[in-house]
Amino acid sequence: MDLGTIFLSETVGTAMLILLGCGVVANIALAKTKGNAGGFLMVNFGWGLAVFAGVTVAYSSGAHLNPAVTLGLWASGVELSFTQILVYFAGEFVGAFIGAVLVWLAYKQHFDDEPLAANKLGVFSTGPAIRSSAWNLITEIIGTFVLVFVIVGFGRVGDVDLSVPAGLAALGALPVALLVVVIGISLGGPTGYAINPARDLSPRIAHAVLPIAGKGTSDWGYAWIPVVGPVIGGILGGLAAAPLLPLS
Amino acid sequence: MDLGTIFLSETVGTAMLILLGCGVVANIALAKTKGNAGGFLMVNFGWGLAVFAGVTVAYSSGAHLNPAVTLGLWASGVELSFTQILVYFAGEFVGAFIGAVLVWLAYKQHFDDEPLAANKLGVFSTGPAIRSSAWNLITEIIGTFVLVFVIVGFGRVGDVDLSVPAGLAALGALPVALLVVVIGISLGGPTGYAINPARDLSPRIAHAVLPIAGKGTSDWGYAWIPVVGPVIGGILGGLAAAPLLPLS
Amino acid sequence: MDLGTIFLSETVGTAMLILLGCGVVANIALAKTKGNAGGFLMVNFGWGLAVFAGVTVAYSSGAHLNPAVTLGLWASGVELSFTQILVYFAGEFVGAFIGAVLVWLAYKQHFDDEPLAANKLGVFSTGPAIRSSAWNLITEIIGTFVLVFVIVGFGRVGDVDLSVPAGLAALGALPVALLVVVIGISLGGPTGYAINPARDLSPRIAHAVLPIAGKGTSDWGYAWIPVVGPVIGGILGGLAAAPLLPLS
Amino acid sequence: MDLGTIFLSETVGTAMLILLGCGVVANIALAKTKGNAGGFLMVNFGWGLAVFAGVTVAYSSGAHLNPAVTLGLWASGVELSFTQILVYFAGEFVGAFIGAVLVWLAYKQHFDDEPLAANKLGVFSTGPAIRSSAWNLITEIIGTFVLVFVIVGFGRVGDVDLSVPAGLAALGALPVALLVVVIGISLGGPTGYAINPARDLSPRIAHAVLPIAGKGTSDWGYAWIPVVGPVIGGILGGLAAAPLLPLS
Repeated sequence: MDLGTIFLSETVGTAMLILLGCGVVANIALAKTKGNAGGFLMVNFGWGLAVFAGVTVAYSSGAHLNPAVTLGLWASGVELSFTQILVYFAGEFVGAFIGAVLVWLAYKQHFDDEPLAANKLGVFSTGPAIRSSAWNLITEIIGTFVLVFVIVGFGRVGDVDLSVPAGLAALGALPVALLVVVIGISLGGPTGYAINPARDLSPRIAHAVLPIAGKGTSDWGYAWIPVVGPVIGGILGGLAAAPLLPLS
Repeated sequence: MDLGTIFLSETVGTAMLILLGCGVVANIALAKTKGNAGGFLMVNFGWGLAVFAGVTVAYSSGAHLNPAVTLGLWASGVELSFTQILVYFAGEFVGAFIGAVLVWLAYKQHFDDEPLAANKLGVFSTGPAIRSSAWNLITEIIGTFVLVFVIVGFGRVGDVDLSVPAGLAALGALPVALLVVVIGISLGGPTGYAINPARDLSPRIAHAVLPIAGKGTSDWGYAWIPVVGPVIGGILGGLAAAPLLPLS
Repeated sequence: MDLGTIFLSETVGTAMLILLGCGVVANIALAKTKGNAGGFLMVNFGWGLAVFAGVTVAYSSGAHLNPAVTLGLWASGVELSFTQILVYFAGEFVGAFIGAVLVWLAYKQHFDDEPLAANKLGVFSTGPAIRSSAWNLITEIIGTFVLVFVIVGFGRVGDVDLSVPAGLAALGALPVALLVVVIGISLGGPTGYAINPARDLSPRIAHAVLPIAGKGTSDWGYAWIPVVGPVIGGILGGLAAAPLLPLS
Repeated sequence: MDLGTIFLSETVGTAMLILLGCGVVANIALAKTKGNAGGFLMVNFGWGLAVFAGVTVAYSSGAHLNPAVTLGLWASGVELSFTQILVYFAGEFVGAFIGAVLVWLAYKQHFDDEPLAANKLGVFSTGPAIRSSAWNLITEIIGTFVLVFVIVGFGRVGDVDLSVPAGLAALGALPVALLVVVIGISLGGPTGYAINPARDLSPRIAHAVLPIAGKGTSDWGYAWIPVVGPVIGGILGGLAAAPLLPLS
C-alpha cells in the first residue's frame, strides 16, 4: 500500500474518531449542553460509534486509527514495513490532533462557560479514577490486549469476499465498534480506557496548545501511561493471537 | 429516476423520519408521557432508528430524506439534474410537514396538558443551548459535514450486489442510523443537531400553523441557522469526499 | 403452509415474545427486582429484543406473532386463506397466554411482594397515560400503521436468496426488532404501545384468571382499544403499502 | 474436532466472556469507578457484548462458553462424545476462572477501596433478590431454556455458507449477544441471570481463593442453584427444540 494513501486515510479516520469520541465527553462533561445527564452508557456508545464512523472512512488503509493496533497487527503477523508503521503512526497522531481541534470548535461556547478546568481536560484526554502507575498501567494493558486480540479474531472468523450490497458492507465496521463499547463498559472503570496512544496524547497536546479559556494543567505526569500501556497490551494481544487464534 | 417516484418516495420516507424522530422528543418533553425520564441517549436512539425506518421505506429513491444530503451527494459527484434536486427538496419538505402533523395527533392530549410553550416548540424544531449565530452555525456545519462525508464513505466501502436475504438487505439502512445516533450523542450538545433543513423548517412551519393549545413563538429568528448550516456542511462534506474517499 | 406448522410456530414465537416482553416490564415495575431503576429505554430494548427472539424461533411460519401483522400482510397482498388467518390468530393468542403465565412464574415472588395492584396489571397489559377512547385509539392506529408499513418495506428492499452463514441469517430478525424499539421510544408515550391485539388481550386474560396475590381489576373498559386500534392500523398500513412501496 | 482445540478455544472464549462480563459489574458496583451510576441496562449490554467478544475468539470450537449450552446442544441432537463434553466443560470452567482473576487485576484498587463485602462477591457470582431455592431455580431454568432454545433456532434459520467479507462474518456473533442482553433485561430481575454454571461457579471459586482485601463469605449455600438450574433449563431447551424447531 502506498504511503500517501496510508497517511491520508489514517488521518481522516482518526480525526473522525476523535471528533466524535471526544465529542461525547464534551456533551456529558461541559456546562449547559443538551446531553449533560446522559450517563456512562452514552459515553461508551459514543466512543463505539465514533470507531464505527472512523473505520468506515479509513477503509483505504485498513483503518488502524490506533498505534497499538498497528503494532498489534504487526506482532500478529500482518506484513508491515518499518516505514509503513511510521506512516501509520504519523496519520494516527496528526488525525487525532485535528479531531481534538474540531471538538473544541464544535463546543467552543460550552468550554467558555464551563467553570471546572478538570472537566475541560477530561474532554481531551483520560485520567485515572485512583492514581497508581502500576495498576493504571495494568488496566490499560488488559484493555488493549482485549482490543487487539479480538480484532485479530474478527479477521479469522471467515474468508474475504466482496459480493454484498454497499449498505451491508458498511456494517463491516460494526464488530469493532461493539468491541470498543464493551471494553469501555467493562474495563473503562479505573482509567477511562485510552487503549490508544494517539487517542490520548494528541488531544492532550491540543489541550496544551489551544487557547482554551480557563484551562488548567494538561496532567503530563500521567501522559506516559496511556501511551506505554496500550503499546504493551497491543503487542501482547497480537503475539497471543498467533497460537490462540488458528487460521480456519 | 422518474420525478413522481422521487417525490412520493421521499415524502413517505421523510414523513416516517419526522413522525418517529419528533415523536421521541414528544415522549421525553411533554407532560404525563410514559417516556418522560428517558434521557438523552433515548432521544438519540429514537432519531437514529427513525432514520432506519425512514430509509427503509424510501428505497425507491435512494432515501435522501434531507436536502443537505441531496446537495452533498450531488457535490460528491452523484449525477442529479437541477429538476431532480428540486423534486427531492419538495418531497423532503412536504414529508417532514406531514410527519410533524402526525406527531401532533399521536401526542394530542399531551400537548394539551403540557404547561410550557418552549417544550411544545422543542418537539417540532431545534434550538441552541447557548445562542450565538456564528458558533451555532459552526456546530451545524461540522455535524452535517460528518453526516454527508460518512454516508459517501458507506457507498464506497464495497461493491453493489443484491443477492442477500430480504431480512438482511433491510439491515442496509442500519449504518446511516448508527451514524445519526453518534452525531447526536457526540455533536448534538450545543444545538440539538438539526443537520437537515427539512427536519427543522417544515416542523417549525407545522408548529406555526397547527392549532396547538397554549403554544408560543416559533422562534423564527433562529430558523435560518438549521437551514444554512446543514446546506454548507453537506456541500463541504460532499466536496471533501472526492479527494479523501477514493473509489476502491 | 400447513395449518399445524402455522399454529405451533406462532404459538412458540408469541410465547417467547410475551415472556421476554412482559418480563422486562416485570423487572422494571415489581418490588425488589434487580432492574428496578432501569428506565424507559431499557423497556424498549426489552420489547425490541423480545421480538428478535420470538421472530427467530417462529421462522417456519413467517413469524407474524401479531394479528395486526397477519391482517396487514393480507391487506398488502400476501396470499392467506381465511382458515390460515384464523389459525395464525389462534397461535398468536394461545402463545401470548402461555408467555404471560411464564412471566408470572419467573417473577412469582416479586408479584407477591409488590404492594401496588396497578403495577401487577401493568406487567400484563397496557394502559393509557391520559384516558380518552378517541385519542388512545388514534395513537394505537398510528403506531401499528408504522409497524406493518415498514415490515412490508423490509420485504421489498431486496430479493430473497439464502446463501449466507447461519449466524448472519439469524440477524434477519434484527430489522423488525429495531423497528419495535423505535415505535416504543417514539410513539409509546401516550398508550404504552400495544400495537398487537394478542400482546394485550391474552396477558389481560391471564391476569384475570391467574391466582396473583393482591391483584386488582383487569381494566376491561380499556381492553377493546389495544385490539381495535392495532387491527385498524395494521390493515391501513398494509393497504397503504401497495401504492407507496413499489416492488423493486 | 480434536480435544486440544476444544479445550484451548473454550478456555480463551470463556475467559474473555468472564473478564468483560464480570468487568461491567465491577464498574457498576465497586467504589470510585467511572461507571458507577451506569444502570441496569449498561450491565446487560456489558454481558451481551462480552458474549459477542467471547464467541468471536472461540470460533474454532463453536463457542459454547457454557456447560448448559454444551448439554443443550447435545440434547438437541448435535453429535458430541462423552469425552468431548468433558473437555468442553474443562475449558469452560478453567476459562471462567482465568477471566475472574483478570477482572480482579483490572479493578484491584477498586476492590481495595470498596467498603461492602457483598459488592465484592457480586462482581464474581450471582445472588437472588429474594432467596427461595424453588423459585430461584425456576427462574434460572426458564432463562437458560430461552438461551438454548433460541440458540438452536439461530442455527436453523438458514443454511451455512462462508462467502461473506470478514467484517460481516464477525457479525455472526451478534445474535447470541442480543439474546443474552434480552434474557438479562427481561428475566434477570429475580436472580441476576447466571444461566451458565461456569459463569457462576468458577468466579465464586476465584472469590474464595484470591486474596481480596475485606472480602466476606462466598455464599456457598446458594452456589448449587446457578449450576443445577441452568443444567436443567439447557437440557429442556435442547429437547424442546427437536419437535418445535423443524429443520427448514
